[in-house]
Amino acid sequence: MKRYISETIGTFSMVFCGTGAMAIDEITNGSIGHIGVAITWGLIVMAMIYAYGEISGAHFNPAVTIAFAYAKKFEWKEVPKYILAQCVGAIIASSCLSFLFPESEFLGATLPALDSLKAFILEVLLTYFLMTVIINVSTGSKEIGVMAGIAVGGVVLLEAMFAGPMTKASMNPARSLGPALLTGHWEHQWLYFTAPVLGAILAVATCKLIKDDNCCDEC
Amino acid sequence: MKRYISETIGTFSMVFCGTGAMAIDEITNGSIGHIGVAITWGLIVMAMIYAYGEISGAHFNPAVTIAFAYAKKFEWKEVPKYILAQCVGAIIASSCLSFLFPESEFLGATLPALDSLKAFILEVLLTYFLMTVIINVSTGSKEIGVMAGIAVGGVVLLEAMFAGPMTKASMNPARSLGPALLTGHWEHQWLYFTAPVLGAILAVATCKLIKDDNCCDEC
Amino acid sequence: MKRYISETIGTFSMVFCGTGAMAIDEITNGSIGHIGVAITWGLIVMAMIYAYGEISGAHFNPAVTIAFAYAKKFEWKEVPKYILAQCVGAIIASSCLSFLFPESEFLGATLPALDSLKAFILEVLLTYFLMTVIINVSTGSKEIGVMAGIAVGGVVLLEAMFAGPMTKASMNPARSLGPALLTGHWEHQWLYFTAPVLGAILAVATCKLIKDDNCCDEC
Amino acid sequence: MKRYISETIGTFSMVFCGTGAMAIDEITNGSIGHIGVAITWGLIVMAMIYAYGEISGAHFNPAVTIAFAYAKKFEWKEVPKYILAQCVGAIIASSCLSFLFPESEFLGATLPALDSLKAFILEVLLTYFLMTVIINVSTGSKEIGVMAGIAVGGVVLLEAMFAGPMTKASMNPARSLGPALLTGHWEHQWLYFTAPVLGAILAVATCKLIKDDNCCDEC
Repeated sequence: MKRYISETIGTFSMVFCGTGAMAIDEITNGSIGHIGVAITWGLIVMAMIYAYGEISGAHFNPAVTIAFAYAKKFEWKEVPKYILAQCVGAIIASSCLSFLFPESEFLGATLPALDSLKAFILEVLLTYFLMTVIINVSTGSKEIGVMAGIAVGGVVLLEAMFAGPMTKASMNPARSLGPALLTGHWEHQWLYFTAPVLGAILAVATCKLIKDDNCCDEC
Repeated sequence: MKRYISETIGTFSMVFCGTGAMAIDEITNGSIGHIGVAITWGLIVMAMIYAYGEISGAHFNPAVTIAFAYAKKFEWKEVPKYILAQCVGAIIASSCLSFLFPESEFLGATLPALDSLKAFILEVLLTYFLMTVIINVSTGSKEIGVMAGIAVGGVVLLEAMFAGPMTKASMNPARSLGPALLTGHWEHQWLYFTAPVLGAILAVATCKLIKDDNCCDEC
Repeated sequence: MKRYISETIGTFSMVFCGTGAMAIDEITNGSIGHIGVAITWGLIVMAMIYAYGEISGAHFNPAVTIAFAYAKKFEWKEVPKYILAQCVGAIIASSCLSFLFPESEFLGATLPALDSLKAFILEVLLTYFLMTVIINVSTGSKEIGVMAGIAVGGVVLLEAMFAGPMTKASMNPARSLGPALLTGHWEHQWLYFTAPVLGAILAVATCKLIKDDNCCDEC
Repeated sequence: MKRYISETIGTFSMVFCGTGAMAIDEITNGSIGHIGVAITWGLIVMAMIYAYGEISGAHFNPAVTIAFAYAKKFEWKEVPKYILAQCVGAIIASSCLSFLFPESEFLGATLPALDSLKAFILEVLLTYFLMTVIINVSTGSKEIGVMAGIAVGGVVLLEAMFAGPMTKASMNPARSLGPALLTGHWEHQWLYFTAPVLGAILAVATCKLIKDDNCCDEC
């Protein structure tokens, strides 16, 4: 139970701050700026990994949870519970933002500026890079494991930075669900629910190829 | 005595640099920018944690001190002395800035751009996120404890970044006291004295729920 | 074989994100900005070092590979294989970007804004600083080795930041090869193929002078 | 001898990148920006600490060297040699920049935007914060010592960020000497030669007061 609460609070915190930055930027005519939004995303992920990494593993993302199960590092029967906890956290976050900033039309919704196929490919690649870092850092030496928050937060920051103008760099179905539900912007959401899962699984498959069948040097 | 001096100097340094960035930005027509101000806040907190963390615990914030006492990780009888040390540091910082930059009207005062209720809720949430990271990192494994400065400084940076345009992201009664005293901007200060304390206590209560009654895996 | 795949994927990821930031910035009228591009470069290098450092050494750069061989820390017979793996990764990255963003004319190509001699000198110095950090961190104590990703990513970030307006701060023949091949901008590429190698070798020579013949305190 | 060469190269690298950012920003009409300049300063200090910290202690600053001697952590007879090595590094850096970018009038020279007394006080405080972090981190636990590069680089970054518009945030007589010598801007340089030394000594005096006579918990 503690692990589910951690996933809910962690995802809530991440979506509240990250999409909150986008909503506040929207309603204050860009006072935060694209760089400020990207920094917010990266650092909240880093902070929540250090806060909850030792309790729940700090997934905060259905694609990451599914990929860890595919890597046999997480039990399949736990997957639906983790995904539910993550989606609840994201929906509460968007609800709070909707109450605080009703003048925001998008609440940080993920809408691509590319055609759907290219947006799909880009989200696959973005999540591939993200999960590559997550799986390699979490199966590396203990010393490198301590750097997980910095490495994973850094990837989120840089991907939000360079790909944000194209797809908003979601990489996370739960993160896209919250604003979609509260604002009704469901168009294109299918790609944000499928592309991250595919990208994360491809990263684990690559890791299995490079490291070993267990995707783990040490075990 | 050494611990009180550490809290005074640490809070002085934090408020001098953080509100100094806001004051210099004000009198130079935005030469630092919102992003620069947020980075200043986050990094001075990080640096002071590495400088004084092993001496005083590096609270620099009455809300954090009260929450640690509520978590039974700090003696209640020490609380007033720590708060006094922190407030003295903040007031000296604002006094120095007032001398150096008399043309600044606000000296980094915390004035919300939202109605009071929403500003109160936002400050509660901001301090909740901050204290969640502080309490979990300080009760986690030793390796994670070394990352405390980065994790806590990162939270301060990101919260100043995304919520700065709304409430200035105080999260700290002492930090709000200094500029209020020196500039006379007392309106709304009640919320900066109460919301952070409530948010920090809620974070400890959640931590007790998730970890154990002691809010600590290891002990 | 695992090491070559790591070098290919790492270089692919680095060039895709770094030059992708430049291409997206180009076609969206500066939505990312120079600071955002520099942050993207630094953080993808950091992330890929934490992901692949323990497998392949995380060179991702022919100049670094040659300099490690010159330092007798890497076998000369492995050098051509590593360089091939890196160039393949970079060319795939530029090909993907060319498909996703055909409207980009430069795809992040390295074209100097200085005359050739000065650009050559600047690239030598930039790679000298980069390799100085790489060789000293990798031959220092184990604790410092854990910080390699942060130190090396930080150097790439700062050099992209300050020298980007002059030479694009390539420091890497493979990184320059990808966009040159896909866009046909071959002018000045000779300097991006030679200067980084010279700079990296000079850094190793200095390290040998300062540390010892082996460029290594511990061994 | 190895230590002096390390100090020379480290100071050369720091001044070349930091004042290089200022010179390139000057001649390209602000392409780097104030935030980019501050990030460059902070990260080059961090990188050089990780590169040379275990060899020479990574002072790169006469004020830091004098303060370490005052703290009895560095031999007084070594002080002139270190200062000479640092000044040589800074002068070579400014000479290289003068050759590469002759159109720059200031080459990153430190000229205050405040009256002299206030600029002096601000530089004293800035160096006080810097040396407080250096002395506390270097005399703390071994784990915190590994974070030295991040903590000290972070302080330099934030001080360049918030105080740069006022005094250029020198904190370092050698760093101010290089551009002054090459551009002839000697006015106000007396304050950049004296204030940092005073601030650094005050930080050590405070550390002695808080920690113990040796300014060191562990020894």
